[in-house]
Amino acid sequence: MKFIETLRDGERVGDIYLCKQKTSAVTKNGKAYESLILQDKTGTIDAKIWDPNSQGIDDFEALDYVDIVGDVTSFNGMLQISVKRARKVSEGEYEPGNYLPVSQYDIEEMYQELIRYIESIKDKDYQALLHSFFTDDKEFSECFKKHSAAKSVHHGFIGGLLEHSLSVAKVCDFFAGNYPVLNRDLLLTAAMLHDIGKTKELSFFPINDYTDEGNLLGHIVIGTEMVSDKIREIGDFPVVKANQLKHCIIAHHGELEFGSPKKPAIIEAVALSFADNLDAKVETFKEALESNTEDTYRWQGYNRLLETNIRKTMG
Amino acid sequence: MKFIETLRDGERVGDIYLCKQKTSAVTKNGKAYESLILQDKTGTIDAKIWDPNSQGIDDFEALDYVDIVGDVTSFNGMLQISVKRARKVSEGEYEPGNYLPVSQYDIEEMYQELIRYIESIKDKDYQALLHSFFTDDKEFSECFKKHSAAKSVHHGFIGGLLEHSLSVAKVCDFFAGNYPVLNRDLLLTAAMLHDIGKTKELSFFPINDYTDEGNLLGHIVIGTEMVSDKIREIGDFPVVKANQLKHCIIAHHGELEFGSPKKPAIIEAVALSFADNLDAKVETFKEALESNTEDTYRWQGYNRLLETNIRKTMG
Amino acid sequence: MKFIETLRDGERVGDIYLCKQKTSAVTKNGKAYESLILQDKTGTIDAKIWDPNSQGIDDFEALDYVDIVGDVTSFNGMLQISVKRARKVSEGEYEPGNYLPVSQYDIEEMYQELIRYIESIKDKDYQALLHSFFTDDKEFSECFKKHSAAKSVHHGFIGGLLEHSLSVAKVCDFFAGNYPVLNRDLLLTAAMLHDIGKTKELSFFPINDYTDEGNLLGHIVIGTEMVSDKIREIGDFPVVKANQLKHCIIAHHGELEFGSPKKPAIIEAVALSFADNLDAKVETFKEALESNTEDTYRWQGYNRLLETNIRKTMG
Amino acid sequence: MKFIETLRDGERVGDIYLCKQKTSAVTKNGKAYESLILQDKTGTIDAKIWDPNSQGIDDFEALDYVDIVGDVTSFNGMLQISVKRARKVSEGEYEPGNYLPVSQYDIEEMYQELIRYIESIKDKDYQALLHSFFTDDKEFSECFKKHSAAKSVHHGFIGGLLEHSLSVAKVCDFFAGNYPVLNRDLLLTAAMLHDIGKTKELSFFPINDYTDEGNLLGHIVIGTEMVSDKIREIGDFPVVKANQLKHCIIAHHGELEFGSPKKPAIIEAVALSFADNLDAKVETFKEALESNTEDTYRWQGYNRLLETNIRKTMG
Amino acid sequence: MKFIETLRDGERVGDIYLCKQKTSAVTKNGKAYESLILQDKTGTIDAKIWDPNSQGIDDFEALDYVDIVGDVTSFNGMLQISVKRARKVSEGEYEPGNYLPVSQYDIEEMYQELIRYIESIKDKDYQALLHSFFTDDKEFSECFKKHSAAKSVHHGFIGGLLEHSLSVAKVCDFFAGNYPVLNRDLLLTAAMLHDIGKTKELSFFPINDYTDEGNLLGHIVIGTEMVSDKIREIGDFPVVKANQLKHCIIAHHGELEFGSPKKPAIIEAVALSFADNLDAKVETFKEALESNTEDTYRWQGYNRLLETNIRKTMG
Amino acid sequence: MKFIETLRDGERVGDIYLCKQKTSAVTKNGKAYESLILQDKTGTIDAKIWDPNSQGIDDFEALDYVDIVGDVTSFNGMLQISVKRARKVSEGEYEPGNYLPVSQYDIEEMYQELIRYIESIKDKDYQALLHSFFTDDKEFSECFKKHSAAKSVHHGFIGGLLEHSLSVAKVCDFFAGNYPVLNRDLLLTAAMLHDIGKTKELSFFPINDYTDEGNLLGHIVIGTEMVSDKIREIGDFPVVKANQLKHCIIAHHGELEFGSPKKPAIIEAVALSFADNLDAKVETFKEALESNTEDTYRWQGYNRLLETNIRKTMG
Repeated sequence: MKFIETLRDGERVGDIYLCKQKTSAVTKNGKAYESLILQDKTGTIDAKIWDPNSQGIDDFEALDYVDIVGDVTSFNGMLQISVKRARKVSEGEYEPGNYLPVSQYDIEEMYQELIRYIESIKDKDYQALLHSFFTDDKEFSECFKKHSAAKSVHHGFIGGLLEHSLSVAKVCDFFAGNYPVLNRDLLLTAAMLHDIGKTKELSFFPINDYTDEGNLLGHIVIGTEMVSDKIREIGDFPVVKANQLKHCIIAHHGELEFGSPKKPAIIEAVALSFADNLDAKVETFKEALESNTEDTYRWQGYNRLLETNIRKTMG
Repeated sequence: MKFIETLRDGERVGDIYLCKQKTSAVTKNGKAYESLILQDKTGTIDAKIWDPNSQGIDDFEALDYVDIVGDVTSFNGMLQISVKRARKVSEGEYEPGNYLPVSQYDIEEMYQELIRYIESIKDKDYQALLHSFFTDDKEFSECFKKHSAAKSVHHGFIGGLLEHSLSVAKVCDFFAGNYPVLNRDLLLTAAMLHDIGKTKELSFFPINDYTDEGNLLGHIVIGTEMVSDKIREIGDFPVVKANQLKHCIIAHHGELEFGSPKKPAIIEAVALSFADNLDAKVETFKEALESNTEDTYRWQGYNRLLETNIRKTMG
Repeated sequence: MKFIETLRDGERVGDIYLCKQKTSAVTKNGKAYESLILQDKTGTIDAKIWDPNSQGIDDFEALDYVDIVGDVTSFNGMLQISVKRARKVSEGEYEPGNYLPVSQYDIEEMYQELIRYIESIKDKDYQALLHSFFTDDKEFSECFKKHSAAKSVHHGFIGGLLEHSLSVAKVCDFFAGNYPVLNRDLLLTAAMLHDIGKTKELSFFPINDYTDEGNLLGHIVIGTEMVSDKIREIGDFPVVKANQLKHCIIAHHGELEFGSPKKPAIIEAVALSFADNLDAKVETFKEALESNTEDTYRWQGYNRLLETNIRKTMG
Repeated sequence: MKFIETLRDGERVGDIYLCKQKTSAVTKNGKAYESLILQDKTGTIDAKIWDPNSQGIDDFEALDYVDIVGDVTSFNGMLQISVKRARKVSEGEYEPGNYLPVSQYDIEEMYQELIRYIESIKDKDYQALLHSFFTDDKEFSECFKKHSAAKSVHHGFIGGLLEHSLSVAKVCDFFAGNYPVLNRDLLLTAAMLHDIGKTKELSFFPINDYTDEGNLLGHIVIGTEMVSDKIREIGDFPVVKANQLKHCIIAHHGELEFGSPKKPAIIEAVALSFADNLDAKVETFKEALESNTEDTYRWQGYNRLLETNIRKTMG
Repeated sequence: MKFIETLRDGERVGDIYLCKQKTSAVTKNGKAYESLILQDKTGTIDAKIWDPNSQGIDDFEALDYVDIVGDVTSFNGMLQISVKRARKVSEGEYEPGNYLPVSQYDIEEMYQELIRYIESIKDKDYQALLHSFFTDDKEFSECFKKHSAAKSVHHGFIGGLLEHSLSVAKVCDFFAGNYPVLNRDLLLTAAMLHDIGKTKELSFFPINDYTDEGNLLGHIVIGTEMVSDKIREIGDFPVVKANQLKHCIIAHHGELEFGSPKKPAIIEAVALSFADNLDAKVETFKEALESNTEDTYRWQGYNRLLETNIRKTMG
Repeated sequence: MKFIETLRDGERVGDIYLCKQKTSAVTKNGKAYESLILQDKTGTIDAKIWDPNSQGIDDFEALDYVDIVGDVTSFNGMLQISVKRARKVSEGEYEPGNYLPVSQYDIEEMYQELIRYIESIKDKDYQALLHSFFTDDKEFSECFKKHSAAKSVHHGFIGGLLEHSLSVAKVCDFFAGNYPVLNRDLLLTAAMLHDIGKTKELSFFPINDYTDEGNLLGHIVIGTEMVSDKIREIGDFPVVKANQLKHCIIAHHGELEFGSPKKPAIIEAVALSFADNLDAKVETFKEALESNTEDTYRWQGYNRLLETNIRKTMG
């Protein structure tokens, strides 16, 4: 497949792309045309159908996969495709992994690892709560598996939310072993649930953008309410355990100015905020190092997320 | 009545006080005694019952009102009462207003004013939600009427939560008239509900301290969940209205560093955060000016809450 | 009229525009030409007179209104007008409201409302001071009526200073009624005078930019001096009243880091800073919502002034 | 003389002190007594006249110098003097320098040095302005000579304002020589005038506290207005020079959060803010080192003004 | 043994204490006496020898262990011991663990675990460097074993530096396993060496206070120089490895405002700063929970180091 | 010479430029070409050799001076040179000052002035240390003379490090005279050595960019180690003097958030941080004023380094 980031001015293109947006418009001369945004996992490109009613231009809609034939041209310094033919294709004709960013790990394997952590929880209340999400609620679990953990920044790919939650759980599991003062059951439960609000804060791929609810409430408040709802369904959940767990979720950003309405006030909340922050920072660093494909010059310049100039470790 | 702040070393005291705390202890010589904290609206004082089993010392418990006879002495530079006689009294023997700080306004009158604001709401969804709290839920409304709005700081008295919520609603009502861009129904609903989480964040008087839930979750998250619970009970509440209202509650502190997990993102949230902050600041200023009973020197020194030296306006 | 924001490459234009700047230059080939910036209320556009001495090019200067005939071309991705004919027009030939941003409210009506507030002031000293500005000083009052309240940001249009000052006065009038602890006369006087320094901080339209004095001293210091000057002219103005009023002006930004050399130390200064800040924020929000003409996507993205992603309220 | 900081419990005292405050009061038994605060340059002490009408207790008032005979006792862990005899003394009977902190340099000599700096100014406008303050305005010059530059912190002694202003002028004189880009006349004028507002911000010794005007307006705004007033008296002062000079005064704290309503925008304002800040820091450091009379341990602990642990340089 | 925190006014004491300070002084009557500070692991108490030359008062010096007989009295609200007899005792007569705070783990066992981490390092350069400190330099290793990691705050006890360094190494070992992007050899080397500067920043027990060098340079700079010195001794140490290792030490506080002159710029520096910060926070939390011996009230109030109200986790 | 900033589209160029970078590439058609960055003191320009093997294209490398003949064209809005002929030239054929920014002062004269300051130091230890750098270490002194003090910002030219160090020394010399509390020998020694780490933090011209060591360690730590190394070579250097001097270097940025791991704790460190900061700010201001070649409009707009809008002083 010819990926979008490799297209050059003057080339002819003939390949399947995901149509992310599609809008109709009219030229100054009054002629109707259509404006598309095509996407694959390497980026997006504008495309124009100057003759929408011509033979060879099928009906299709935004979020369809479309086999495009056209010419790459440069307009105002940006590449765009002038589309000659467009055919909507069916599932099976394309490899989804080529169009949307996806975790490098196997999603089902990660999910099984998460389930094993749930089975290792000794506290029956916390375990029941976890099962009510990850085992019993199929709609939730399907959604959780496919979600990203971010619009951009780190873990912004399919399976990213699962990959991040699992990694935070692993780190917390180690912390609980290393620091016996920590309550492992509370900490692991909080680790697995801390970001579940993101399933509603962000929409599914390929959109992967903040929802209205996400913008208004944020994943911390949404996730806390999701936990409260399940606890109500379960019934008989001890109040103190519920409050401690919700506190861990509320406080997991560590500081008020990072959006936590409470600072960590119990030690598991401290440990969770470290695990979450570390996993995010390491992934951010890793993604930043990977995105640097030149190896002639080692310093990558100021990285806005890490707030410093960074480079790959040598030797 | 002889108020606690007027007691002096060497005086004999004989009056009714609220017993805020009561603990048993043993002297170095192995003799049992009891240690009390007595309270009235002017403050608290330590008291000791050195001979708990003597005649004249009735059985009573913390939070009882007790008629105390004793001597005021000085110990380590602090006054304390050596209790000779103690008799638990009944309701009616004392004037509650002497023991607990209370709003200067009539609570029932304020509540009726709040109800009139609810009746002025045109949006049926918001109005139904308000009625479900303030009209239909007797437990909630009784609690709301008696609560303070703070442990210390401003409106830290019985009826303070009602007084503050009503005042914020009045200010918001004016804002809605002055700035037609504002949605009055949403704004007033949010004004009346913005601090309801304080009914669970703070315990009742005379304790009036942060509850476990209050410390762990805070009134912003608690209040948001209370709204969600009522909305679920009501059923058929439009999602966008629910999210906008919850956003106003979540964002009412205005800035992340003041404990709001989201900054105001719709204009009613901006207006509410101003009304809330203004009402708090004006009340803080007023209480600070009132607490200054000397009038010979006008500047009151650095006020920690207002972060500057303040004085009463002259002329 | 053909507004600047609607011009497109290749069009012929023939309409009256305000000439904001005019400079002479020489091409590499040594040929003299003239470079203009033309403006209407929708924006500005560069224009070139390649043949300044040709017939049809009248004499005119910067800030004249000129009837332009020419062709719209694209240069380095920016549109510009190649001017063929240019004729200076007289007052009456054009509608000023098309060229400069202006308040949507009637300036004289707003001014009368301001005068009524002055007449409602009971304190004779404050009232005399207000009359000395708004009634007796014709030069000041003319200037005040036409000024904007900002270079950009909020109220950046003709009449904006008056509109904002009047709105702050209204809000303060309500505050004084709602919080009896406030001295209404002091608060309203301060509200009407708080931004008068802007008449010297910013130049008149169409320039509407910071003056040298404005950059060096700022409207807070300038306005304070203007009040001192009038007080001196009036004579016999009580010192404490003068200092309290000047304090309100000095402190109206609320915090040192926003340019107030003192934090509010009297309660009227607190109230004024809230009224000013609220009015500015609401107007900023309103202008941001209005500038978003698309309605397909509701969230407007990060707003630099409000420091968050915002959207219009729904429902 | 027996200085206050050397008094010990049980001693008899017989010496002249400055009476800083005097208030009448009544004991619980209804007996009238008088409460004094006595001061010398080493500190203050409470004193009581238990028998105000006895022979040997003269009439005197606050701010009189009084010859006191009495006994030092300890009350609540604080020393106080029980006064037996009190006689108001006349000027000449006491050495003023023993009672109020005073500059270690000769005030008249410092003033002559300041005058010589004025005479070195070449710009006639700036020089005339300086003369109008320091030469022609006797009331101002007397006040300026005796004022402190602070309530506490640095230069908080008689002559402190002069000493600090002169030192800042010296440093600026060097800067002007070292950096030719600086306009020496503007910089030195600003150096001498930058803190003149303190003559009204702080009251005279022995009070040396913030005045009402000082609290409300601050020395930056007061000083700017003083300069404006003199400029008006002088007449024909060039506007740009006036604005640049006032800008230097306004911006001399260097940052908004330190109370300057504008940051330095011309290079002389940058240089002045450095000279002022350096002189203050060095004096603060010097005073902190001097106040440490122990030499056994060299580190002085956290210094709140310098925000670090400090010590004297060795070797 | 009778511990200092249990002493009460009026008791007779007869036990061995560590003499932390000893100074000679003279009473007002001219009589020589000696002033001591006695210490055990529960705190310190003042003591006076009013009759230093009496029989029964042996010669001893600061930092000797002394068998004290005396009476506990109260002076200005503080307890002190009036010493009747004092005898310097020899090693073996007292249990050192009673006088100085010490790690709850066995120091030699911890050290062996550290050595095993060194042996697991595959990079020969880093391993040689670690051996040069921990194996070959006996003076260093003895010092390292006994040092605390802080004056107060966390790990402020004998063995605290070793305990903290080992724990950080363990956490980093896990991180290296969990995040393959991390260079384990570099990260573990940095973990073990990151705080070695504390061996010179803080003096030995019982003083355990900042040294002159510690106050002037801090452990970050001192430790970096110690690493440079060993690297020079070893010779042939690759420059890039040296710089990366020193960078990890320099950046281990994570942010400039916490005293790191560089922010983490390589991923191992990020991981180390998390491990160090987490270990410090968990230990701080643990020590805070342990110091709260009351269990009647669960919330401990505002904790200055953790910047929030905290409590033990329940359930 | 035709300077780069004066080149225009369509011109033919024929002059000597410094080749800063040179890379080989291949067009889409598979044809080899070379891409250059040419530099003179006015800026840089891209250049392409489309026919690298043609006669007239000599062999040369990056950092050679090359006589270029070619045509200036515009590509994507940027100018570039299409190179027709390229000849490597020898030293003597070009004037180095045209290619690299250089101090306006004579480097040798400045150096002699620095040496005179060294000779004025009375403390033999400090003087010996200074000689060991500036007199005895030829490699260091050559490097020091030619280095810049910054990549961009202030003193970013050949000789800039010397010019800045000398200026800081002059200012410190004045401070030592004006404030006798300062130890002149320590202060001047620290002034001359405070930025020597920049000789390793930044590479030589024409690169003048951060080195790997510079990015990882920074000039503060590097410079401190350089001082330690010389002190070891000298031997017998008093420890307290060494620590005080190193403290001054470490603390010379004044605040932790500016990269100093310690705040100034001795008064010379305070004075040095002021001198350094002042010299940097004045030079920054001067360079900003010089870079503004227009004089029609006086305010230069927001200056990112000075964090305000600035202008040249008038009058």
